[in-house]
Amino acid sequence: MSITSFLPPVRTLMGPGPSDVHPRISSAMARPTIGHLDPLFVGMMDEVKSLLQYAFQTKNELTIPVSAPGSAGMETCFMNLVEAGDKVVVCQNGVFGGRMKENVERLGATAIMVEDEWGKAVDCNKVEEALKANPDTKILAFVHAETSTGAVSDAKTLCEIARKHDCLTIVDAVTSLGGSELRVDDWGIDAIYSGTQKCLSCTPGISPVSFSKKATDVITSRKTKVNSWFLDMNLVMGYWGANTKRAYHHTAPVNALYALHESLVMLQDEGLENSWARHAKNHQALRAGLEAMGLSFIVDEADRLAQLNSVTIPDGVDEAAVRGQLLNEFNLEIGAGLGALAGKVWRIGLMGHSSRAENIILCLSALEAVLGDAVKQGVAVAAAQEILGA
Amino acid sequence: MSITSFLPPVRTLMGPGPSDVHPRISSAMARPTIGHLDPLFVGMMDEVKSLLQYAFQTKNELTIPVSAPGSAGMETCFMNLVEAGDKVVVCQNGVFGGRMKENVERLGATAIMVEDEWGKAVDCNKVEEALKANPDTKILAFVHAETSTGAVSDAKTLCEIARKHDCLTIVDAVTSLGGSELRVDDWGIDAIYSGTQKCLSCTPGISPVSFSKKATDVITSRKTKVNSWFLDMNLVMGYWGANTKRAYHHTAPVNALYALHESLVMLQDEGLENSWARHAKNHQALRAGLEAMGLSFIVDEADRLAQLNSVTIPDGVDEAAVRGQLLNEFNLEIGAGLGALAGKVWRIGLMGHSSRAENIILCLSALEAVLGDAVKQGVAVAAAQEILGA
Repeated sequence: MSITSFLPPVRTLMGPGPSDVHPRISSAMARPTIGHLDPLFVGMMDEVKSLLQYAFQTKNELTIPVSAPGSAGMETCFMNLVEAGDKVVVCQNGVFGGRMKENVERLGATAIMVEDEWGKAVDCNKVEEALKANPDTKILAFVHAETSTGAVSDAKTLCEIARKHDCLTIVDAVTSLGGSELRVDDWGIDAIYSGTQKCLSCTPGISPVSFSKKATDVITSRKTKVNSWFLDMNLVMGYWGANTKRAYHHTAPVNALYALHESLVMLQDEGLENSWARHAKNHQALRAGLEAMGLSFIVDEADRLAQLNSVTIPDGVDEAAVRGQLLNEFNLEIGAGLGALAGKVWRIGLMGHSSRAENIILCLSALEAVLGDAVKQGVAVAAAQEILGA
Repeated sequence: MSITSFLPPVRTLMGPGPSDVHPRISSAMARPTIGHLDPLFVGMMDEVKSLLQYAFQTKNELTIPVSAPGSAGMETCFMNLVEAGDKVVVCQNGVFGGRMKENVERLGATAIMVEDEWGKAVDCNKVEEALKANPDTKILAFVHAETSTGAVSDAKTLCEIARKHDCLTIVDAVTSLGGSELRVDDWGIDAIYSGTQKCLSCTPGISPVSFSKKATDVITSRKTKVNSWFLDMNLVMGYWGANTKRAYHHTAPVNALYALHESLVMLQDEGLENSWARHAKNHQALRAGLEAMGLSFIVDEADRLAQLNSVTIPDGVDEAAVRGQLLNEFNLEIGAGLGALAGKVWRIGLMGHSSRAENIILCLSALEAVLGDAVKQGVAVAAAQEILGA
């Protein structure tokens, strides 16, 4: 056996994540490792917390990055807030609602499912009905931005409904954080988790989470211990907590946090609203190009995410072969469909640093070249440029 | 609020981990991010598995890096192998045996504790007694290399005893992997976890694990689902499994795995036995210097780890002030005592890339300078050099 260093190619990442990592962020990751209890590192942790509070638009004290990917962030929310015997209303309109159900059931709790078609937003009326029918519901859980379909749900209204029925909320913001409007405090979200590898343009592996005072009180007054020692916020709080001497819990992923810090500094410097506006504008440009080409979106315009564009595959086209050709000939990655949409759609991501003019032009031109007669030729780029130049 | 990029200082890391990260590894981490389902990335994952098999000295098919730090690796072993009602004999001779107990109890299982003094190896006779007294024990769990004390236990014998009593074994090798003799197949270890930030000299955040065929069969034939969706090996196997189409589970921490891959290539190139020998030799050099100075080890010579040196603090010395001065004046990090040893010892790590002559000389000289009259002056470096030069 003799294995040599791995030298990855340079790809343009326009799938459902990871997105293109800005060189400022990847080089931050290569900075010298220091100890996870080093006073300078602890100072950086405090900055990460402040920057995450800004990104989430919250004053929540318990706003930290979990030392593991987004699915561990999801589990952090469920494991800490749900106890055996609890009832949770879970909205499913894509892959990730199903994963929430798995989380609830593995905790010995009951998941009441509110299902909507894949590609549709969560139906607020159905949620209200479910909460009326189940007055003992402790938590309403839903996905803000469904990465598997590209649909955004009305988090603000859903949280209002939950409050009216005295429920906590758990919100999946893996794909929305930094890319579309999200206001944790204004909307009254109790627990939220995200990922670093989507609209923050950071490397994958860390999951920012935030818990409201109400959620934190639920965590600190549980009847039973959290199933996971690693994800138990009662312990993690001692490590990340403000105004306390840091207690050793686990070894923080030092360099991954350098990268997250840098990505959040970049978001702060751009301004959150500016980032949302950039994502929205670039989406319109990509959309104009794709539609000019003859491709159509599966999500209704009102519910469409800017950062994740699901489009139907033209008749007779081998979708996997197209993705393979884009990857091999243009070093361009776009995403396949997932779950119920496997084989039926492509998912084109415009997240974070991937959301820029040159990527849109590359994607449209490459798709046009690979799809040939299956789409209208020679019009897509101009259609996109009209919006980009505006 | 305006936070700027975080520019860490360059430290020499001689605490209990993270250890110094070799520049080859930190620059690998900054390589271009590619998709976690990219065929080239999947090829790299296969190489990481092979390299980990080499590092663990195992042919175990289920040998993978968990996408989270060592404590999540511990939890992966316990969550997958232990079910409610099971009985586990847990050896405790430092901090991490206590964490194992927490893991067992949170799963609704019973932990039978075999306790030894902190700084001593696990007593094999006591373990045998405990297994005789509890013939329904399913698992024996122990720490191979106790990071909190610097003691190594006789993993080979402990595994023999476990087999005689028809028990599976869970072994903590966070600090031993790559730094001291460890032979998963020869010793018959069933489940083992480690960390990247110790003797592999990689950045913290990933936990290599390996499960024997027998352990894997237990996982695939559980009566109940694993409590954690994220750590459920039945699902993770589908993502990392050989000879299968990769099934999406979570987004792998792409760049952290580049770094792990590079660190394992370096271990392969040095040769595992050579790495063990280097750690052993450098330990002798540091030891000669520290003893010449008048400091003494808390662990008996026979049970001493090469990579983690716990020494007593001279009378009248403010141990925290010394560590602060080493950090501020020499950019040198050494570790404090943990748990029962807090305030009583320093822990000096010689792990991975930290285990080299220049670090030993720096550490001895700096300690001599800071401790002044509390230690014998002018003899430590020469004592170390005698061994380094041999």
